[in-house]
Amino acid sequence: MEKRITIITLGVADLQISANFYENILGWKRSPMSSENIVFFELNGVFLSLYERVALAEDATVDAAGSGFKGFTLAHNVGSQKEVDDLINDLRNKGVTIVKEPQKVFWGGYSSYFADPDGNLWEVAFNPFL
Amino acid sequence: MEKRITIITLGVADLQISANFYENILGWKRSPMSSENIVFFELNGVFLSLYERVALAEDATVDAAGSGFKGFTLAHNVGSQKEVDDLINDLRNKGVTIVKEPQKVFWGGYSSYFADPDGNLWEVAFNPFL
Repeated sequence: MEKRITIITLGVADLQISANFYENILGWKRSPMSSENIVFFELNGVFLSLYERVALAEDATVDAAGSGFKGFTLAHNVGSQKEVDDLINDLRNKGVTIVKEPQKVFWGGYSSYFADPDGNLWEVAFNPFL
Repeated sequence: MEKRITIITLGVADLQISANFYENILGWKRSPMSSENIVFFELNGVFLSLYERVALAEDATVDAAGSGFKGFTLAHNVGSQKEVDDLINDLRNKGVTIVKEPQKVFWGGYSSYFADPDGNLWEVAFNPFL
């Protein structure tokens, strides 16, 4: 299997709410591939898509029930500690839930976490080694 | 916030088991950034990392408890229906759990799902429109 990922799909409770978050809070422009049932964002060589959680489970033929920690995180790295602070403050001012305040972390970086409307965890990090 | 994702981190129950799956079943070479506590794979412009689930929750300062559908899927697109079939058959022969057999899907594509050792769902798809 080639070392490649094409799409990360987030199963969301309400597509309008989630699409509004990614488009109007994060400020990302949706891809023209989007439809009324699925919203795509073309990132750096990979797509992020938003799809109703129940429909996503149905597509994968699994039970949609689930709760608690989802067992994954997404990271958005930036170029300095100040960029972490600035981005987190900007998101906070827009009403975004900051899960972990920016701070130095044991591996030598500086990071923070915020949550999207479904509780998906985005880390905003500066990694001086990357 | 720039439209960019740097890392997708999967919180895994057993790092050795998961690393073995991605390295020896999928056949992906780990990045030299890896250590004994975290394993990185450098994909197409984005890293996939494997990290102990409890440590990941701790890093994000959330409760590690969780069960059921994780509410996300990862997709690996290939160039034809036959490539979907061939890859899924190869993985099946290596003992991988096939969650959904390859089949035509309503949006006009052809897709299948397999699970990694933590039940993370990977879709293998041919999308004639992409």
